[in-house]
Amino acid sequence: MFDRVRVLWLGDEVIPGSPELIDFLIKNNKRVIVLTNNATKSRAVYADKLASLGFNRQLDKNFLVNPAAVIADALYRAGIAGYKKVYLIGAQGVRDEMDALGIEYFGHGPEPLDTADGSTFMYDIDLEVEPSKVGAVVIGYERHFNYHKLMKATNYLKQRHCLFLATNEDETCPGPNPDVVIPDAGPIVAAVRCASGREPLTVGKPNSPSFDYIRRRWNIEPERTMMVGDRTNTDVKFGRDHGLKTLLVLSGCHQLEDIMDNHKNDLPDMIPDYFATCLGALLSRGQN
Amino acid sequence: MFDRVRVLWLGDEVIPGSPELIDFLIKNNKRVIVLTNNATKSRAVYADKLASLGFNRQLDKNFLVNPAAVIADALYRAGIAGYKKVYLIGAQGVRDEMDALGIEYFGHGPEPLDTADGSTFMYDIDLEVEPSKVGAVVIGYERHFNYHKLMKATNYLKQRHCLFLATNEDETCPGPNPDVVIPDAGPIVAAVRCASGREPLTVGKPNSPSFDYIRRRWNIEPERTMMVGDRTNTDVKFGRDHGLKTLLVLSGCHQLEDIMDNHKNDLPDMIPDYFATCLGALLSRGQN
Repeated sequence: MFDRVRVLWLGDEVIPGSPELIDFLIKNNKRVIVLTNNATKSRAVYADKLASLGFNRQLDKNFLVNPAAVIADALYRAGIAGYKKVYLIGAQGVRDEMDALGIEYFGHGPEPLDTADGSTFMYDIDLEVEPSKVGAVVIGYERHFNYHKLMKATNYLKQRHCLFLATNEDETCPGPNPDVVIPDAGPIVAAVRCASGREPLTVGKPNSPSFDYIRRRWNIEPERTMMVGDRTNTDVKFGRDHGLKTLLVLSGCHQLEDIMDNHKNDLPDMIPDYFATCLGALLSRGQN
Repeated sequence: MFDRVRVLWLGDEVIPGSPELIDFLIKNNKRVIVLTNNATKSRAVYADKLASLGFNRQLDKNFLVNPAAVIADALYRAGIAGYKKVYLIGAQGVRDEMDALGIEYFGHGPEPLDTADGSTFMYDIDLEVEPSKVGAVVIGYERHFNYHKLMKATNYLKQRHCLFLATNEDETCPGPNPDVVIPDAGPIVAAVRCASGREPLTVGKPNSPSFDYIRRRWNIEPERTMMVGDRTNTDVKFGRDHGLKTLLVLSGCHQLEDIMDNHKNDLPDMIPDYFATCLGALLSRGQN
């Protein structure tokens, strides 16, 4: 099971050696699953990207898992489709996966510009859909997030029956410009959690919903499965919490010093079983 | 020392008996200070409101304290004025208090409408002012808060020299429509804290900066001072943490059951020394 960003590719650049290792595994009849925390694009879009970067074409959208797919599946199993609507703060990937399962959502995209002078509190909002018809609030990365959306989410979540789901809680995400920090879904979830006083079910790594989804779908044996990623607090923790073997690649976010720090700070669930400079390095060992 | 909302007045309604009690105290040569966590209006605006509601006119803006005034004072003492600029996510009250001390700020108010389709991450922003010229980021309630502002604040805070101040962290605030929850500054601060990985100095109750400001200004003796408010987790905690006597009025947010809960949950700093149904009730006792 592989993380995506900084393990397989970053931006438009493939991490050297990664396609060859994936190819080697597939040819040796290993099951390869790619598990990302990014819900901005659907699995179909990622599959096209993998193919265009030269990865084995057997790794199609059916072997990809992202929080958008897990959330759409959870809402579908909760009986939302055809029954209630979803208030969505989230990007295109979540919409595509919900569309695929016939789940109705609203609220995404730009809000009308508020031209009030900002000197006073906003006391009223147009909720668009009556609260009793809203069965869930879903929060993910959304570049159009603003105070109006925060207020709407908070007021829908006032109803106790309303589910509260979040794609992931990554604080920031890697981008092409190293000088610019890009806030991810975490800060948006933090705002809604604070205003609503409610705790979301966050499906992305390191939490369990993604693992439950994978196990339900492929019936994997955790002890014969390895989680490969570049982050100790999402990928490694996800693996250790769910009984998988873990491998940290150093081509991404966390380095050997981070493993040492986790040792010192007594965080065993963030210490990988194995590490490698990158996936390509594994391949040369595997073939020798 | 008095909290404002639900103690002295709420919306356009005075809490019955409150003006009479304040009047009684002033005529008996007690010093009366009003300390609010609301930074959306300047002290001058609140003073006008107090007068229009029939409060003793000696209670003018010089006896009012709000986080906007405390932040402007802190920035002034830090030498920001005339030297660096402040990136502000905050309402008119903060602007007025900064104007009064000659502190330059930018970034407040509506952002240009982002018409991108939201399917991808936003990778770049126009920071308006060069990071090296920004000495502080100030966060408070701002109805125009959005992802662009979050991203700007996060990128300014990447510089270690940049101060990070917040007006208050109230999760929600009381409004005229009881069916609508109004998120306050807390959720906005939570988002910026999460994205930046930095901890703000929050000046509002129950934190110390407001107390330090009051002590510096009036040289009060804590043991001869009483904090009167309607919330155990802001007003009472503020009083107890700083050695003041505390009185909870039940005309507002927290009730006797909340005090009992705090007993049970071993939260002595949220248990008031005294309580009263409202300020008016105190007056009849004081006069008898």
